[in-house]
Amino acid sequence: MATEFDFNGWMSCQLEAVERALERWVSVDACADLDHHAPADLMAAMRYAVLDGGKRLRPLLVLATVKAVCAAEPLASGEDFEEAACRGGPIEQGFDGDITEAALRAACAVELIHAYSLVHDDLPCMDNDVLRRGKPTVHVQFGQASALLAGDALQALAFELLTPDAAVMPLARQARLCALLARAAGCAGMAGGQAIDLASVGQQLTQEQLRQMHRLKTGALLKASVMMGAGCGSASSATLAALEEFGETLGLAFQVVDDILDVTADSATLGKTAGKDAHDNKPTYVSLLGLPAANALATALLAQAQAALARSGLADAHALQALAKMLVERTH
Amino acid sequence: MATEFDFNGWMSCQLEAVERALERWVSVDACADLDHHAPADLMAAMRYAVLDGGKRLRPLLVLATVKAVCAAEPLASGEDFEEAACRGGPIEQGFDGDITEAALRAACAVELIHAYSLVHDDLPCMDNDVLRRGKPTVHVQFGQASALLAGDALQALAFELLTPDAAVMPLARQARLCALLARAAGCAGMAGGQAIDLASVGQQLTQEQLRQMHRLKTGALLKASVMMGAGCGSASSATLAALEEFGETLGLAFQVVDDILDVTADSATLGKTAGKDAHDNKPTYVSLLGLPAANALATALLAQAQAALARSGLADAHALQALAKMLVERTH
Repeated sequence: MATEFDFNGWMSCQLEAVERALERWVSVDACADLDHHAPADLMAAMRYAVLDGGKRLRPLLVLATVKAVCAAEPLASGEDFEEAACRGGPIEQGFDGDITEAALRAACAVELIHAYSLVHDDLPCMDNDVLRRGKPTVHVQFGQASALLAGDALQALAFELLTPDAAVMPLARQARLCALLARAAGCAGMAGGQAIDLASVGQQLTQEQLRQMHRLKTGALLKASVMMGAGCGSASSATLAALEEFGETLGLAFQVVDDILDVTADSATLGKTAGKDAHDNKPTYVSLLGLPAANALATALLAQAQAALARSGLADAHALQALAKMLVERTH
Repeated sequence: MATEFDFNGWMSCQLEAVERALERWVSVDACADLDHHAPADLMAAMRYAVLDGGKRLRPLLVLATVKAVCAAEPLASGEDFEEAACRGGPIEQGFDGDITEAALRAACAVELIHAYSLVHDDLPCMDNDVLRRGKPTVHVQFGQASALLAGDALQALAFELLTPDAAVMPLARQARLCALLARAAGCAGMAGGQAIDLASVGQQLTQEQLRQMHRLKTGALLKASVMMGAGCGSASSATLAALEEFGETLGLAFQVVDDILDVTADSATLGKTAGKDAHDNKPTYVSLLGLPAANALATALLAQAQAALARSGLADAHALQALAKMLVERTH
């Protein structure tokens, strides 16, 4: 590409495609053959949890990685590489090429897992939060039982999205994406991290223990976003290893910034209750290191992530680079 | 097979294999590389929810269907049929042949979805039940937050079990099994049925509405057990259609019997609180039809299921036949 990469243009196009895809896939069409209003009510709670408000960072990570991995092998059509993932069957015209349905499904599946985790996390028995993305949380709006079920159904829907007809996505790819997502969501991933989080309230953690909590709680799904994007194309094992370090480091940087913003931003900017971690007596990078050192750590982690990305050998990593910078330098 | 089929012998062998498999797969090994006790605590809640107490009806349905489908094509080795699913790589020596790891994974994945649904269903914001399988429910034992997370992690673990290395299960089969399980668990399946259940408390439902609730809430996963078993081998579309009717009808019969037992059995026999549906003012087949008609319906549905099974053309359906009879004639 001779001209400079227009990250904002790329991003707004991807975001529009993701919103349209979520709008279509998290919909009552799934319950259209059911002669009862309750699944439609359940779907309303699911849509409320997912649509209109998320930053879609994880879908963007998936799609930026798809772009990088597929651009890296523009002519490959070997056994491990399906052209369709990058070129064939486009359903959305992108700013910088086509976004395939397979890539969008991966992007949206990760977002559904993220969305369900927020719904359950906000419940009274967990964080008991009433404000999320500037709106009442799902259980405030729909009741606890519906919030519980909506979260459960969103997790299942993520795997439904990853397993369409074979014509949409090769079955082997479906299986690999399901494997990545399930492990990132489960007890050795996000759910395990939340268990550490629960057990850590009021505890003094070491930096290593804090790192481990976040590696699972937030990092696992962010890393999975990168690896699922990579799984939509093909990549050498060296590239995969570099992308894994990129995703892992970026995930940690993201959480450090989250801890910083909890202290420095206000609720209106965050769209959720600010200062909540300190109020809940939760260990954070800021409480452990202080604000200046936490800022320095975020900067160092961003540099480490970018170095890993440079090692990946991916030619078209502009979107991933810009996205990493944006995630760490965000103000909400 | 010249000799009469020994259903009890077959079943006790399968149950032992299932227990051993669950014991191995729902284990701290999954969290062994994590330097924090919390995921191990989470795993303890998951194990409490799964091990030692379930009747394992769904795994038995999976394994009986595998047996029927694989026996039906003893010599086939075409493109759609992997011998490995019936014969190769046995990890458990069965009473009546080998149970492969792939079949056991499918069986246990369904059981994990069932187990997670019970954990969430028992929560105070849902049924608020304190007794399950004769033990305190998970949230009574571990607290609500841990019960919520354990349920979430069990759902993810189900999909982890279905997506092992390709050497254990062909990737295409993994994808198909994930597709079946996700749809059975989600908003147009079990979670949707629970939403109807929630919305139906104190309502007067028609028999058709009650049927639809149970078709989703309990039936979807029972039918998926049959179809996932079928997905472990290969079957003609006619056989699949017959098995689908078998699974659907058996699922409904199962629920009618559940409603009957809620009235006729005591808590000690059931291992859960008896008479709870009536107490909660929930519509049941007994409240709608009365006990004699509910009994007659269960008998009629069993006959219909067995007729569908006969139409399937499966040679070795003895285990499925006996299992259907057992599910409907059970006393707890």
